[in-house]
Amino acid sequence: MTPLSPTDQLFLWLEKRQQPMHVGGLQLFSFPENAPDDYVARLAEQLRQQHQVTAPFNRRLSYRLGQPVWVEDDQLDLEHHFRFEALPTPGRIRELLSFVSAEHSHLMDRERPMWEVHLIEGLKDRQFALYTKVHHSLIDGVSAMRLATRMLSENPHETGMPPIWDMTPRARSGGDDGSLSLWRSVAHLLGSSGKQLGTIPTVAKELLKTINQARKDPAYHSIFHAPRSVLNQKITGSRRFAAQSYCLKRIKAVCEAYGTTVNDVVTAMCASALRTYLMNQDALPAKPLIAFVPVSLRRDDSSEGNQVGVILANLHTDENNAGQRLMKIHQSMEEAKDRYRNMSSEEIVNYTALTLAPAAFHLLTGMAPNWQTFNVVISNVPGPSEPRYWNGARLEGMYPVSIAMDRLALNMTLTSYNGQVEFGLIGCRRTLPSMQRMLDHLEEGLAELETAASL
Amino acid sequence: MTPLSPTDQLFLWLEKRQQPMHVGGLQLFSFPENAPDDYVARLAEQLRQQHQVTAPFNRRLSYRLGQPVWVEDDQLDLEHHFRFEALPTPGRIRELLSFVSAEHSHLMDRERPMWEVHLIEGLKDRQFALYTKVHHSLIDGVSAMRLATRMLSENPHETGMPPIWDMTPRARSGGDDGSLSLWRSVAHLLGSSGKQLGTIPTVAKELLKTINQARKDPAYHSIFHAPRSVLNQKITGSRRFAAQSYCLKRIKAVCEAYGTTVNDVVTAMCASALRTYLMNQDALPAKPLIAFVPVSLRRDDSSEGNQVGVILANLHTDENNAGQRLMKIHQSMEEAKDRYRNMSSEEIVNYTALTLAPAAFHLLTGMAPNWQTFNVVISNVPGPSEPRYWNGARLEGMYPVSIAMDRLALNMTLTSYNGQVEFGLIGCRRTLPSMQRMLDHLEEGLAELETAASL
Repeated sequence: MTPLSPTDQLFLWLEKRQQPMHVGGLQLFSFPENAPDDYVARLAEQLRQQHQVTAPFNRRLSYRLGQPVWVEDDQLDLEHHFRFEALPTPGRIRELLSFVSAEHSHLMDRERPMWEVHLIEGLKDRQFALYTKVHHSLIDGVSAMRLATRMLSENPHETGMPPIWDMTPRARSGGDDGSLSLWRSVAHLLGSSGKQLGTIPTVAKELLKTINQARKDPAYHSIFHAPRSVLNQKITGSRRFAAQSYCLKRIKAVCEAYGTTVNDVVTAMCASALRTYLMNQDALPAKPLIAFVPVSLRRDDSSEGNQVGVILANLHTDENNAGQRLMKIHQSMEEAKDRYRNMSSEEIVNYTALTLAPAAFHLLTGMAPNWQTFNVVISNVPGPSEPRYWNGARLEGMYPVSIAMDRLALNMTLTSYNGQVEFGLIGCRRTLPSMQRMLDHLEEGLAELETAASL
Repeated sequence: MTPLSPTDQLFLWLEKRQQPMHVGGLQLFSFPENAPDDYVARLAEQLRQQHQVTAPFNRRLSYRLGQPVWVEDDQLDLEHHFRFEALPTPGRIRELLSFVSAEHSHLMDRERPMWEVHLIEGLKDRQFALYTKVHHSLIDGVSAMRLATRMLSENPHETGMPPIWDMTPRARSGGDDGSLSLWRSVAHLLGSSGKQLGTIPTVAKELLKTINQARKDPAYHSIFHAPRSVLNQKITGSRRFAAQSYCLKRIKAVCEAYGTTVNDVVTAMCASALRTYLMNQDALPAKPLIAFVPVSLRRDDSSEGNQVGVILANLHTDENNAGQRLMKIHQSMEEAKDRYRNMSSEEIVNYTALTLAPAAFHLLTGMAPNWQTFNVVISNVPGPSEPRYWNGARLEGMYPVSIAMDRLALNMTLTSYNGQVEFGLIGCRRTLPSMQRMLDHLEEGLAELETAASL
């Protein structure tokens, strides 16, 4: 019996019918060489026998004296958690994304350990997929991504590798640098780290006090300047998931041409995609959109734990020229990093928590925002740079599936893998109609930069 | 803009994460003769073009002055409602039931019209399936079943038949004889028919008053005598759906041998299945289980609207001998029908509402029951007796998918079609482990009666 941390309680509080709080990952594999046609069905049969389930995958939610605790599930029913499924014809990526869109919209059963692994057959060209879904209170997105990567091998001939539910995650303290683990800094801000948080009204009151103090402080003045946009409405329960790989070499060539970082270029691609998408709807705000971009501030690779900071990146969506937009984004990212260089560890935690505090307040109270601090979350999670295999099946791509929230209808998370940048966009299907078009707009954004640099 | 009826509001109130309030139906078809192998994919393509959506399928929930109303959805997104899906290999009925179990566990998106039609390919032997899911507040189970039947033709050569979302349901008043439409009589009992119900505490208080009066009245004394059983626990959010066809000819032979009705025999089959299932878990109550069995009390086929009564059928699960169990069930069913024959219309409505009132009270308040009035719902919905076709595809079977509720973890609904009795069992997956075994126990129950009658 383990009490839930304050952050994990937040994820339960924030969850509602139209706002599930689980994260996911989609992995695309190709069949091993010489694999039989029924390879995926055989794999499903093997996985069904893997009844060994390690922590945290054996933990279900329970309540003791009104407080949420994790207890071991002594009736674990693997058939509920591991599901063998199929795509309809013609089995393209489009059908796969449609499958994930529907599955990611469904709340998880709170009476059971909150994870599901979907093995998916029926993809064209001897491919198959794994869609893994874990509640954010059980494991954070980055840890889940790392587990999913640790499940894999660099060796195409290695076999007997366990599924994710039979792997022990590394200690959590060492694995926190994802966008939403920032909720942990909100808990820290409330000074209740390690204790029970109490009730939503208490938390909301404390948040409001902190926000109002910060608004009077000129040092924090800059974080209350995002425009209102269609991205920042109440959401509904249906999701759209869109994912695509982009060539890292092309992105790196653009970096070199402009003297920026890879992160600057992918941020500029997102800016361009958002700009085009919103212009097509006649909904681009006059003021530039602001993105919430978590960044690792680790100065020393050997240090325990990660320093996580947040950059409120100005996306300069009001700038017409793609090259200039990239350079302005680069400059605003550099300034933000400079600011962090002059901050103490405690200042960093306070600043990042404050950045999230208004969103947390509006989410917890359901009130319409008085202050918009950012419009969209853009998160970049590092992935393996060399090819990976799972029992001989080559990983072709891996795409994060994150969380859309009230007033934050779109989340753009990306990762890198084997010479590719892998974008996973999750959004509210009603608030953002035909959101999948942003995949094309991302490509156009990259091409635009190539053209401007005569690449 | 149409205000929700009091009953439809009840369905929204009763719904929670672990207790979705939608009903469904599963239809199994075989390919038309000479159909190409990609027949189902082509059908999906055609259905995707059917953008015409008629009432009530174009209605979404909204709130005006705090009261729920139906409004027309002016952004209807057919891709959300009509879904083309596939079963994994080997594509047996087992995979189909597993698919429906998972889908029926998911809450529907309340910001959209609450219906979904799943066209399912990947079944063996050139078959395919339709799983239709509709929220109980939008349409009742029997009306949905009728619509699904009206969608079909007796003519195997008829084509151009519209999908269910482009058919106008008959006026609702003429289509109410399903188990759960009995909630309507609870609303009647509260004397608020046609008006807004107010709040849950008000309704619960009124129900409690009525129940307490009834308990003192000797005329109603018999309805408070069901034993406690594992079927009457709190449920979790995951469902198990089990379905099978049984030969009507065999059932009719048993009827003749014992001089009972078809309904008596299917009720005895359920009794036998429950008895065996509970005995195997060492959980059979010493006192006999009581089933809530809605019956049509129509005396005149030409009359407008249906009289619906409820029989609290003693299942005599304490009786060891199958033949004697059937005869006792027959007798208790006859006595109940006799009682109705002497009742006025108003007495019938009051009696049926009272029967449901304790369950309604416990469901609305979440309190553990002080009075168990029945243990299980067994509902029999008439279906077509001749073969039916949908654009040339022959309907092989149709199975109702009903609702499991707190304290009513199992619902057994059956229908008849073309010489078959079609059972659909829906239950809480955790409360009733391996519930699908009841399908075998139903068959054993029938075989037992055949043996006893030397058939």
